[in-house]
Amino acid sequence: MTTSLAGRMLLADAFHAPECGALEVLAQALIEIGGDGHIVRLTRPGEAGYTDALERAEGEDRLTRMPPGHYLLPGFVDTHVHAPQYPQLGAALDVPLEVWLQRYTFPLEARYADLAFAGEVYGRLVDDLLSSGTTTALYFATIHQEATRLLVDLCLEKGQRALIGKVAMDHPENCPDFYRDASPEAAIEGTRALIDYIGTHPGNGEGRVLPVITPRFIPACTDAALEGLGRLAAECGCHVQTHCSESDWAHGYVLARYGISDAASLDRFGLMTRRTILAHANFLDEEDMDRVKARGSGIAHCPLSNAYFADSIFPLRRALEKGLHVGLGTDISGGPSGFMPEAARGAVLVSRILESGADPVRSRAERASGASTRIDFREAFHLVTAGGGQALDLPIGLFRPGYAFDAVLIDTTADKGGIRLFGEEDGETILQKIVYGAARANIARVWVDGLAVA
Amino acid sequence: MTTSLAGRMLLADAFHAPECGALEVLAQALIEIGGDGHIVRLTRPGEAGYTDALERAEGEDRLTRMPPGHYLLPGFVDTHVHAPQYPQLGAALDVPLEVWLQRYTFPLEARYADLAFAGEVYGRLVDDLLSSGTTTALYFATIHQEATRLLVDLCLEKGQRALIGKVAMDHPENCPDFYRDASPEAAIEGTRALIDYIGTHPGNGEGRVLPVITPRFIPACTDAALEGLGRLAAECGCHVQTHCSESDWAHGYVLARYGISDAASLDRFGLMTRRTILAHANFLDEEDMDRVKARGSGIAHCPLSNAYFADSIFPLRRALEKGLHVGLGTDISGGPSGFMPEAARGAVLVSRILESGADPVRSRAERASGASTRIDFREAFHLVTAGGGQALDLPIGLFRPGYAFDAVLIDTTADKGGIRLFGEEDGETILQKIVYGAARANIARVWVDGLAVA
Ligand SMILES: [Zn+2]
Ligand SMILES: [Zn+2]
Repeated sequence: MTTSLAGRMLLADAFHAPECGALEVLAQALIEIGGDGHIVRLTRPGEAGYTDALERAEGEDRLTRMPPGHYLLPGFVDTHVHAPQYPQLGAALDVPLEVWLQRYTFPLEARYADLAFAGEVYGRLVDDLLSSGTTTALYFATIHQEATRLLVDLCLEKGQRALIGKVAMDHPENCPDFYRDASPEAAIEGTRALIDYIGTHPGNGEGRVLPVITPRFIPACTDAALEGLGRLAAECGCHVQTHCSESDWAHGYVLARYGISDAASLDRFGLMTRRTILAHANFLDEEDMDRVKARGSGIAHCPLSNAYFADSIFPLRRALEKGLHVGLGTDISGGPSGFMPEAARGAVLVSRILESGADPVRSRAERASGASTRIDFREAFHLVTAGGGQALDLPIGLFRPGYAFDAVLIDTTADKGGIRLFGEEDGETILQKIVYGAARANIARVWVDGLAVA
Repeated sequence: MTTSLAGRMLLADAFHAPECGALEVLAQALIEIGGDGHIVRLTRPGEAGYTDALERAEGEDRLTRMPPGHYLLPGFVDTHVHAPQYPQLGAALDVPLEVWLQRYTFPLEARYADLAFAGEVYGRLVDDLLSSGTTTALYFATIHQEATRLLVDLCLEKGQRALIGKVAMDHPENCPDFYRDASPEAAIEGTRALIDYIGTHPGNGEGRVLPVITPRFIPACTDAALEGLGRLAAECGCHVQTHCSESDWAHGYVLARYGISDAASLDRFGLMTRRTILAHANFLDEEDMDRVKARGSGIAHCPLSNAYFADSIFPLRRALEKGLHVGLGTDISGGPSGFMPEAARGAVLVSRILESGADPVRSRAERASGASTRIDFREAFHLVTAGGGQALDLPIGLFRPGYAFDAVLIDTTADKGGIRLFGEEDGETILQKIVYGAARANIARVWVDGLAVA
């Protein structure tokens, strides 16, 4: 297979999910990719021009056929990753959020003052996420300018679409002396400096890496920092990310500090825009959700992380029914896995537990949510692809003209993979088995903007 | 690496968990394996005879060193697998238990009247489970004698330790005409015939495959069948398996039929012995648990399956604190994964959700279990190894003299795996990363009774 598909025509069995819950099985689709790595045209058998286009591409030696047993999916969009926490992925899961930050996470993140360490971890992380099919990641970095620039460089070099924020955290009460922005100005100016770095980076002509204003969460920031970052968001129009109402503690902290909810507070600071992603958001009430919807902000639902740190299950179905933009996140390392299909499976799993209830000692009426809260593999697949793209306001996650050709090729025959087909499955069942079973060993090839990156 | 370790000495970094929650890190342990594939001796650095034994083994060319970055675990024990359901693994997860059986599962299981189909699926399943590190599996087969014998043959041929039952299900009300034992006698005599087949199989001299009396669950069986199977259990002393109080429906069905609980009913039929495994058991009350404990029976906790079919989370911590024998099960295909580390991760995840509660709309007091219900990776690791062995009353799951050398070698450096070590992790953290991250690609080698089987 060539390393670039720019200018080529692909013949593939593909899946995508333009609407949440509605799947399109694109059997033997012809996908034409432009010189810029964007999709020019998708034609299905029986549609006008299909046979002609296929024959022409073959004649011009421009056709790339996917091997049998291979299926093309839009690349996975991970809407919540803490890049510096990769060394503790799958560890340090034994204490509540506020203890976890002080005991494990701040000391680890502080080490990114060391550029050699940052280079080793970030290089490995980007390689691993790409080979896991994560074509787009929304990254929290650390407070450090140099290490965060290095993450930008590595994403550009390795070809991952990435949205990257220098973390802003200047509150002396909740951030330790050894890991804190020196002042509100340092938090704001550091953020601005990274925005400038990314915007003027000579390797970033296509804008594949984007800057993100990243107040860690309200407890970690002073009012002055939050105000300044809100002004910066208005000024530059770039993405914003933060944590919102994650746990009982985090939710209660903001209520105690401002007398209004986390979501309302972020909005007051100008931090809730169409390009904002709120991580977790478990404790949003109806009014908060209405506000998120009004602003067009997105939510990064992190089902695996939530079991460890959020004290509850995010009401995903309710958010989807309200029309909120939702993507899924691994929350490396709050969640123990960096692999998006595991996030998808986790989202289905916890949505069912929320519906049926947890504690068998209680009656069904007492323990169940009283509403249908479940999602299935179709919705989960949408969320890790098109849903993430929509939340980020980027043309990714679908095989549609104008969209970037960011894609994952799943080899369902991989011996060390987790998928077994017996030749009897229809298209939907094949996708269901992919969502539930895919392992990294099933990921045969990954493209971003038509370029093979793994 | 040689295909048999019989008579050899192994030098390995190993982990095992003799007690639930207590881990032993066996760095550079010397494990001597007898000609029968059982462990003769385990010596740790600093213990008497370590250096001598190491030098002698080297001198005699009997030493096998595990490569760097590789860790030895006891083989995984899956205490609940429906072998015939493998084709629908990761599919058919959209309806409740009683509908799922009739719509998907009984029609699929009925197909095992076809031996060619049975051979294809069962061969693939045993291969896949072995390469997944499942050295022991407790199998439900189907009602068919021939296909079930074929599963026995395949396990013997491929070297998996297996406990296999012909499913008994003769109740005309809850089993369809096309898939049902013809009579109570057919259910009982079919069970006896399989016990005889396994007991006299010329390839089964070591007893690596064992027979299991397998009433599907009370709703599927007549009183006459249950009584006869209970008598058979007393007569032959072999293992018993069934489903117990899995869902609101299943739990309520038995209460309505007998006026006593599922567990009490099974006990009354003589089906609750030291060698009984009850699958799921989510709705056991205190009295039921006391009864299970008194009988020494085991429970197969299937956390992933439970989210789809059990309407609740099994109170694992409570069962462990009572001293019940518990193993984990994938419940292929009630759970969407056949990989035991996913079951381990699932057990941790749901134990935490049970503790913190699910629905964020309710207050913590209303939604949380009110008790500490969480387990961590240590307990989960115990359950998929020694816990399963103890539940099955077999000398497996530990690196201890007299135990079978059933083991899995984890390659933490596998590129397509899910484990990343950064050279700073202590032993416990390495195991934690293995439990949370291991993928099939990390499974470098698998042994049963000292024989390499994958
Ligand atoms: Zn986070
Ligand atoms: Zn079962």
